[in-house]
Amino acid sequence: MTKTNPGNFFEDFSIGQVIRHATPRTVTEGDRALYGALYPTRFAVPSSAEFAKASGLDPAPVEELIAFHIAFGKTVPDISLNAVANLGYAECRFHRPVVPGDTLSTTSEVIGLKQNSNGKSGVVYVRSTATNQRGEVALDWARWVMVHKRDHDAPAPETVLPELADSVAAGDLVIPEGLDFSDYDFAAAGEAHRWDDYAVGEKIDHVDGVTLTDSEHMVATRLWQNTAKVHFNTQARPDGARLVYGGHVISMARALSFNGLANAQLIAAINAGAHAAPAFAGDTVYAWSEVLEKAETSAPGVGALRLRLVATKDRDESMTLRNEAGKYAEGVLLDLDYWALVPR
Amino acid sequence: MTKTNPGNFFEDFSIGQVIRHATPRTVTEGDRALYGALYPTRFAVPSSAEFAKASGLDPAPVEELIAFHIAFGKTVPDISLNAVANLGYAECRFHRPVVPGDTLSTTSEVIGLKQNSNGKSGVVYVRSTATNQRGEVALDWARWVMVHKRDHDAPAPETVLPELADSVAAGDLVIPEGLDFSDYDFAAAGEAHRWDDYAVGEKIDHVDGVTLTDSEHMVATRLWQNTAKVHFNTQARPDGARLVYGGHVISMARALSFNGLANAQLIAAINAGAHAAPAFAGDTVYAWSEVLEKAETSAPGVGALRLRLVATKDRDESMTLRNEAGKYAEGVLLDLDYWALVPR
Amino acid sequence: MTKTNPGNFFEDFSIGQVIRHATPRTVTEGDRALYGALYPTRFAVPSSAEFAKASGLDPAPVEELIAFHIAFGKTVPDISLNAVANLGYAECRFHRPVVPGDTLSTTSEVIGLKQNSNGKSGVVYVRSTATNQRGEVALDWARWVMVHKRDHDAPAPETVLPELADSVAAGDLVIPEGLDFSDYDFAAAGEAHRWDDYAVGEKIDHVDGVTLTDSEHMVATRLWQNTAKVHFNTQARPDGARLVYGGHVISMARALSFNGLANAQLIAAINAGAHAAPAFAGDTVYAWSEVLEKAETSAPGVGALRLRLVATKDRDESMTLRNEAGKYAEGVLLDLDYWALVPR
Repeated sequence: MTKTNPGNFFEDFSIGQVIRHATPRTVTEGDRALYGALYPTRFAVPSSAEFAKASGLDPAPVEELIAFHIAFGKTVPDISLNAVANLGYAECRFHRPVVPGDTLSTTSEVIGLKQNSNGKSGVVYVRSTATNQRGEVALDWARWVMVHKRDHDAPAPETVLPELADSVAAGDLVIPEGLDFSDYDFAAAGEAHRWDDYAVGEKIDHVDGVTLTDSEHMVATRLWQNTAKVHFNTQARPDGARLVYGGHVISMARALSFNGLANAQLIAAINAGAHAAPAFAGDTVYAWSEVLEKAETSAPGVGALRLRLVATKDRDESMTLRNEAGKYAEGVLLDLDYWALVPR
Repeated sequence: MTKTNPGNFFEDFSIGQVIRHATPRTVTEGDRALYGALYPTRFAVPSSAEFAKASGLDPAPVEELIAFHIAFGKTVPDISLNAVANLGYAECRFHRPVVPGDTLSTTSEVIGLKQNSNGKSGVVYVRSTATNQRGEVALDWARWVMVHKRDHDAPAPETVLPELADSVAAGDLVIPEGLDFSDYDFAAAGEAHRWDDYAVGEKIDHVDGVTLTDSEHMVATRLWQNTAKVHFNTQARPDGARLVYGGHVISMARALSFNGLANAQLIAAINAGAHAAPAFAGDTVYAWSEVLEKAETSAPGVGALRLRLVATKDRDESMTLRNEAGKYAEGVLLDLDYWALVPR
Repeated sequence: MTKTNPGNFFEDFSIGQVIRHATPRTVTEGDRALYGALYPTRFAVPSSAEFAKASGLDPAPVEELIAFHIAFGKTVPDISLNAVANLGYAECRFHRPVVPGDTLSTTSEVIGLKQNSNGKSGVVYVRSTATNQRGEVALDWARWVMVHKRDHDAPAPETVLPELADSVAAGDLVIPEGLDFSDYDFAAAGEAHRWDDYAVGEKIDHVDGVTLTDSEHMVATRLWQNTAKVHFNTQARPDGARLVYGGHVISMARALSFNGLANAQLIAAINAGAHAAPAFAGDTVYAWSEVLEKAETSAPGVGALRLRLVATKDRDESMTLRNEAGKYAEGVLLDLDYWALVPR
């Protein structure tokens, strides 16, 4: 019998099934340094222990996307090793800051199943939860993936479609305990714009671009222990190109958004995310944002902005999301809908 | 007089000579993070402080190969700067875990010398010992290298050939103090296979491959302060290619072996290693393993597996080590014989 | 109104103006590890906590150039985003070691202004000061940059040219508190040459070369939160090449200088620096040094060497700085004048 992991196929999943994913992973200051070396991030809270402390967070949390990528990466061998496509995610909430020394483990529960009409594959919906070493929830999210069937003759399961919110309601956002922006240092943070300065519908072109390399996206993807072969192996795709991990594009766009959103210090939730096109080494990634919604919070000096973060291949100063046919415009790589916490 | 290091030539070595190598090097959590960014490793003990603690190891040790590469790198400027070829190593034992904060220093003793019949070079055998800041042995190993003579007319030394074991005897393996796998969490570690599930002669194809890049192998090799110029300088070889440090291939293959050997948590010894062919950027590295020997240990729940780890350029599902002529088969890059500690 | 940073233009600067730069940045062991992965550095003080402690420094400082790059990078968005050229720097002194856990912030004061005769740009002189979380000065330096005017019709400011020393006087060097090389371990450090062994006028060819890659210089430059677009974006220059950050060449040359200057453990000051030519991926960087001046210090066993560090594209064994016309010789990339602290 083979000792290697064949991954789960569509017929291996059942509603209510709970999967504990390997491997627990301790976050360190090394992760923070590498994240800063891979993405042009300058957000003051994760960059500066002093700024974080002055904001009520001590020790300084690492960027939420570090926790997201680590937690997500663990699910790959069990959920999406035999995936046809990653279809989407929703209801991702960050429940508490992750700090160096925390050890993250991830568990997934199957919450939906729908076999495709061709009988060769199906869509699996899971809710994944990452906990720290004290068993506290660090983040959770829902995700759905199209997965191959091993045996096309295996019977179709009963279709169950979970109800997933279009976005996390402002009232359901978890504000990190102790967060206080009432004495916020705008000069140190890099920009003067506060919550009140952003208007729903406003778009921001983040100006800067970064050209991707294979070494960098592989280093990033490995750091999160995401071992999906298409990212690393030129023999895994007919065109010999390594596919850039979608999370690499998310982190690059989020870091580029500093220029115009320097005060969007923390990510509280990810409402939805779509990878509209694949990215490859040599592509130059730009980003623009749109303010979708504004909400107050109970924390002193803290407001919430719901933002659309769009990554594009090449710069699109027109900031066009969709073409006339309603499809993603040429060049759109990522359409991410998230909540950020911002000083008022 | 030149201030730069010309390295030692064959006639500079004498039996019993002891060389203290520069530079002592403190291991940090940054090294652990970088190792995880360079190699697709997911072994639970070095990945998770909690898993390590539950296994009796607190703080979590870094991967043994981090210690090996650091300790080995120090010997390069004194032993192999003028090497024709690295011929082999043997009797490498890991005497205690290396943890962040440990400072490693390496010393070598010349234990063998044999001038080649052409009078232009000779083989130098050294036993190298790496100690931590408390003077405790962290690891030691024997190694032999063919080194140029500076002066072809220099007299040949008396030939001394050390006796080196084909492999470390199971009874000589050092089990880290406190190691206890009796309450091992197989789900967290990623695979269910225990010591009893592996049979001598069994071969495991580790399935996954990684395509090498120049940036990554240079970053890795520098991290270990190994400055052999062929790895970094396109002008150092007639073909303009940078030669990948052999240790990079070892670490890549060890990490790939997670898929099928996820529970081979710790390396206790390296019995032998041969770099059968050079590796370059663009090569896609795969790995397979063969179980060579099994042994019990005195530690609770801990067994030892002696494994052959073979790295290949391109995948060889036939897992062929040697061709009909008894030479390494086409595509074999590395043949490494080591002892791993595994839950029973 | 745009939310993104347009940077300052020449007419935005005024004498005496003080600019607080974003973002404060906490230095970690991750930075030390990454620095060692990017540059072939082996200096014993920053490499070994034990060696540093034996030299009176506990905890071990990170390399001064880590602090320099971080502090310098912060000034880019405010000072040189609209730069035509970086013209030079002077009077850079390291006032105290930077250790992991320190948070660096940078402030700049405008100390000189001179509009160019074409009316389209001008030279801005600033003195920048980086402080740690206790408000102590970590390092300071003067720098001058040619900056575009936004409005060519804006009136010229009164010309003010600051007096800047050709080099930091030996008596003004700050020796780290407690530094003591009287019990220096030359074998551990890697070379036997002490302060007395170096003569003014002596030149040292550091022998080794490293071929640059895009991934590595981008990773390095991001680590310092330097986001100047020419380093990252192939669309930012007509030739499609990414310009290597000058500081990357400085760090590469400094690390290469280990071979011949292994005991130049600490940088006390940078007197002047000129980037004579741009560097790009594929270039192979070599280095040579010249001893410019020698000075005693008040610290036990510690001498100071003033050194010229020259980086070249391709090796120049003749170590020629300037051609017959008095211009930098073909291949010279960097001419850096600095003070190092060396055991006597």
